[in-house]
Formats: sequence, C-alpha cells, structure tokens
Amino acid sequence: MTAAKYDVLGIGNAIFDILVQTDEGFLVRHGMTKGGMALIDEERAIAVYQSMGPATEMSGGSAANTIVGLANLGARAAYIGKVRDDQIGRLYTHDIRAAGVTFETKAAADGPATGCSYILVTPDGQRTMNTYLGAAQELTSADIDAAQVAASAFTYLEGYLWDPKNAKEAFVKAAAIAHGAGRQVALTLSDSFCVDRYRDEFLDLMRKGTIDLIFANEAELHSLYQTSDFDTALTQLREDTKLGIVTRSEKGCVVTSTDGVVAVPAFPIDRMVDTTGAGDLFAAGFLFGLVRGAGHENAGRLGALAAAEVIQHIGARPQASLKELAQQNGLPV
Amino acid sequence: MTAAKYDVLGIGNAIFDILVQTDEGFLVRHGMTKGGMALIDEERAIAVYQSMGPATEMSGGSAANTIVGLANLGARAAYIGKVRDDQIGRLYTHDIRAAGVTFETKAAADGPATGCSYILVTPDGQRTMNTYLGAAQELTSADIDAAQVAASAFTYLEGYLWDPKNAKEAFVKAAAIAHGAGRQVALTLSDSFCVDRYRDEFLDLMRKGTIDLIFANEAELHSLYQTSDFDTALTQLREDTKLGIVTRSEKGCVVTSTDGVVAVPAFPIDRMVDTTGAGDLFAAGFLFGLVRGAGHENAGRLGALAAAEVIQHIGARPQASLKELAQQNGLPV
Repeated sequence: MTAAKYDVLGIGNAIFDILVQTDEGFLVRHGMTKGGMALIDEERAIAVYQSMGPATEMSGGSAANTIVGLANLGARAAYIGKVRDDQIGRLYTHDIRAAGVTFETKAAADGPATGCSYILVTPDGQRTMNTYLGAAQELTSADIDAAQVAASAFTYLEGYLWDPKNAKEAFVKAAAIAHGAGRQVALTLSDSFCVDRYRDEFLDLMRKGTIDLIFANEAELHSLYQTSDFDTALTQLREDTKLGIVTRSEKGCVVTSTDGVVAVPAFPIDRMVDTTGAGDLFAAGFLFGLVRGAGHENAGRLGALAAAEVIQHIGARPQASLKELAQQNGLPV
Repeated sequence: MTAAKYDVLGIGNAIFDILVQTDEGFLVRHGMTKGGMALIDEERAIAVYQSMGPATEMSGGSAANTIVGLANLGARAAYIGKVRDDQIGRLYTHDIRAAGVTFETKAAADGPATGCSYILVTPDGQRTMNTYLGAAQELTSADIDAAQVAASAFTYLEGYLWDPKNAKEAFVKAAAIAHGAGRQVALTLSDSFCVDRYRDEFLDLMRKGTIDLIFANEAELHSLYQTSDFDTALTQLREDTKLGIVTRSEKGCVVTSTDGVVAVPAFPIDRMVDTTGAGDLFAAGFLFGLVRGAGHENAGRLGALAAAEVIQHIGARPQASLKELAQQNGLPV
C-alpha cells in the first residue's frame, strides 16, 4: 500500500442549496415532513420554489459539505459528484475547488440542470429539504476515477447515493477499489427516510464488510434497526460495523467500536440558526480526527466543534476557519 | 393627483451578490480599495472569482435591496431593473417577487449574463465590491413603465445608474414622469467613487430639483462637496436639497431639511458581520417612515433598525421580519 495522496475522497449527490427561513405553517400547508429530505420532481420543484420566500443560495450536497469541512480543517480532500455545465454548476464547481478540494468530475453537457435542494429553515433552526436531483442523477460508475479512489485513505459515501439509479453501481465500484487498495470505506446513512427506502441494502453493505465506518444520527439508527430503544440499536450497530458513530444533537455523540463505547458531549453554542449540514460537518471533524491519528474521543470533539460552527449560521458550508477554531479549543489539527 | 398604487418604486442595477468572508491581505494582493465598489469587466470578473474562496450567493443591487426592505416592512413596493433570462436571473426574479415586490421588467433574451457583484467581507465586517454590470447595462428608458412611475408616491433611484450607458436616460425620464404626476424623487449617492465620477451631474440634478430627497453616507457627502469638514458639507447639502439624510455608521444619522437638523442614534447590535446593504436598508426604513407619515426622527429610527438587522448577517437582504422588529421596538409600522 503506497502512501495516500488524499486523506478523504467523498462521493455524493452534488446539490446546490436554496435556503429560506420560514414558519412552521409553511411546512404544514405544503405537506412537508419536518426535518426530512423529500425527493421532488421538476414540477414539484417549481411549485415549492414559487411558494418560497426570498432565499440565500449556497453550494451543498451532504458528502460535499463533509469534504469541504475536511479541506477547511487542513485535510487533503477530493470529491466526485455530478453537476451540469450551467451557471449554477459553475458556482458549485467554483465553491468546492476554492475550498481546496480536488474536483474533476466532468459536468454533464446536456440533460437536467444542476440539482437543487429547496431548504426551509424553521424558527427552531430545524431544516426540511426538498431535493430535485437534476444532473446528480447522471453520475455513473464511469465517473469513478479508480486511481483517485485507490489513492485516498478514506472513501466517504452518502446513503443518498442509493436514490439516483446509476449511482449505486458507482458506489459499489468505489468501495471495491478502495478495499482492493487497502483503504477504508465510510458511509453516512443520510436520512431516516432514506434508511427506510434502503434498509436491507444498507444492512447488507455493513454486514458484508463493504463499509468499515458508519455515521448515523439517532433517527437513522432507530430506522435502521426498527426500534425506538437507543441501547438496543447501538448494540446491533456494534455487531454490524467495526466503527459506528451516532450523533445525538445536543446530547453529543456516541462512538462504538471493538475498543468499546465512548460518549462525547456536544460543543456549546450561542444560538442555533440552521441545522443544515450539522451531520455533514460532524463527519468532517470526526474523519479529520481519524486522519490525524486522534482517538475516538478527540475525533468526536472535532466533529462536535465543526457541527457547532455550521449550525450557528445559514447554510451547510463553514463560514469560519475550523482549523483555527480547533486550535483555539486545544484540539489536534 | 390620484392615490398612489405603490409607496415606493425603485430603479437600479439588478445585481446578484457572490459574497465571501476573507482577510485584509486578499484586498491588498488584488489591489482592491476597501469599502468601495469597483466596476469590473468580464475578464477581471473571472480573475477575481477564481481567486475568491467558497461563497454564499444572494440577490442584491442597491435600490433592489431597499425595495425588498420596504416590502418586508409592509410597504407597497415595485422595482425596475434588468436581468438576463438565465439561471441567476431566475433566482433574482424569484427573490424580489417572493419578497412581495412588483417586478415586471422584461429580462434580456440575449447579450451579457445577469450582473454579479463579487463581494469581499473582511473580519471587521466591511465589504468591498467588484461589480460586473452584465445585463444591467441593457436597461433603457423603454423599460420605464410610465404608469407605474406615475402611480408611485416615491421613485427611488441609485447613483450607480449613472454607470451603465443608457440608464441615465431612464433615470431622467422616470424623474420627469414622477414630478409630472406630483410625486417625489429620491436618490442615493451610492458610493464615494461613484460621486467622484459624476459629482457635477449629481449636484446639477439636486440644484435643478430633479431630486427631492438625497441619501448619502459621510464618505459620499465629503466626496460630493470635496471637503473633509462634516458641518461644511452638511450646510451645503441643506442648501442643495429639500431633504438630505446622511448616515454615519455607528454614529447614527443626521437629517437636514427646511425644518432644521435632526440627529438620530444608531441601533445597538450584538456583532457586526457584514455591512453589505447597510445604507440600502437604512433608506428602506427611512422611506417607510415617510410613507407612514412619521416624523424625521422616527423615520431615522426605522432606518437605523433595518440597517442593524442587515449588518448582523451575511448579505444585503433582510433575514428577519423588519415589521415585527419595528413593532417590538415601539416604532410605527
């Protein structure tokens, strides 16, 4: 095994976020399930957007947010995801490259526009997402650069990749290349409804060892094991994966591995503004800890710190230097 | 004179903002004058954007920000400005209409893309703008809807309109229609460098009575009268315009009129994040006060309140209900 060129390679749906602060009534009137991610078609996207208030736009996408967080912390990071060669695709490409991420996936020259998520942020800071996959659906296994995967210490995949038709194949191909090169593969379960859609497939990936690390929040964990009891679910997770990291919002996180179970508290915040990207940035901090050889506790603290930064402003990309924040808080960078 | 259908009609350069937080060194390395607005061509726009970090995007444009603030406060507001019918133009059109603003200017079907401003926000909250006018340059007097101008109690114009070649004519046409219908015309001086470019023309507009109200910040006022003495400049302003409103950042504002001079303090803030839109939102609050028949002092307080909201987050559009904020602070809405 040669030295890794990249610390983490992320593969995911490249999605541009259109964010608006709204009230709870909006979600009710439009039949939206609060806190979830609903897939919408173009017609519904137009209808949702027309009913939305004035918005802020920002590049997003779950794995992409994680990868940008990693680069912001100082990791060597790369990303694979599909945009269209349109104005929004160019904004997207700028943002991820400007963050220091290697991003070489060829933009689609035709077909649907760059994917967008219409994100409603309620006064409690909770986000509800309506995602039009657009060009993200065009990601295929041909977009997986084998040399890049083999050269990455971790390949980080999002559960959302199970939604677009051809991305599963890309996902499985990447995992096989990574393991063939002696690298590790991480998966975030993405969303409890996503777990509902693909529960058996995700469990199969875990149990067959296609995945080495699992990131999940409580709702996703409960959905995965169809239980409302946290300890029961955690015990099962520990059996099914070498390393499982469960985020619990203001209760911090729990890390389960062959070494045992470690709980890490949340990082204190002044005011929760927008939870968009909380899980993504937690994963960034945690993976960064692993990359730097930190123990699970310090990795969890780095995750908590990165998540705390992103929930105190609108949008899922960091607005401060996470590296400086970590240094100020005595965490390893 | 019939009752006005709109409280305020704004006419300006329709510009989409691409905002990034950066350090002072960036401005120095790229030869940018801190706090100003520099006009850039497409080649320079590409170079500036390539050197910028990951950004947040949001609709902007000085007069448009003011008009959105007015609508947010509850005024009947309309806007005239030119975008292209591209993805960014559609985001722009959505945002201004979703704010409750009547916006009917036909998007350009060809020619340059929707205008963009690349905005660098330094740690002190100051913003430095690099504006590519794009489709905004296509605004002509044919875009001025005479009935709409005649039906607006105030027509609000931005000094930046003096930059694109054909917009001056649109500006002058709108002012003539407004006065013909017995309405009032307001102008913001926009930027001290803009005043430098068009000093004599602006003074001429004021002295000929094309303009009834002038909004300026201290730097613009000093540039207009080419003096570093505030009181000297203010005395001249009082001679040249019926109503002059000068914003002074943390020192609040001064309103000069035939009734005398009134000073109003700034509104207290927790933390200055981004001054983009501070003057625009001040104008929104002040004009809203005039529309509601408030005195100059309360109009100034409304301006200070709206400015305080917008400088505490990234971007020049309000993220809270200014109407609720005003009510909470006992101001007339």
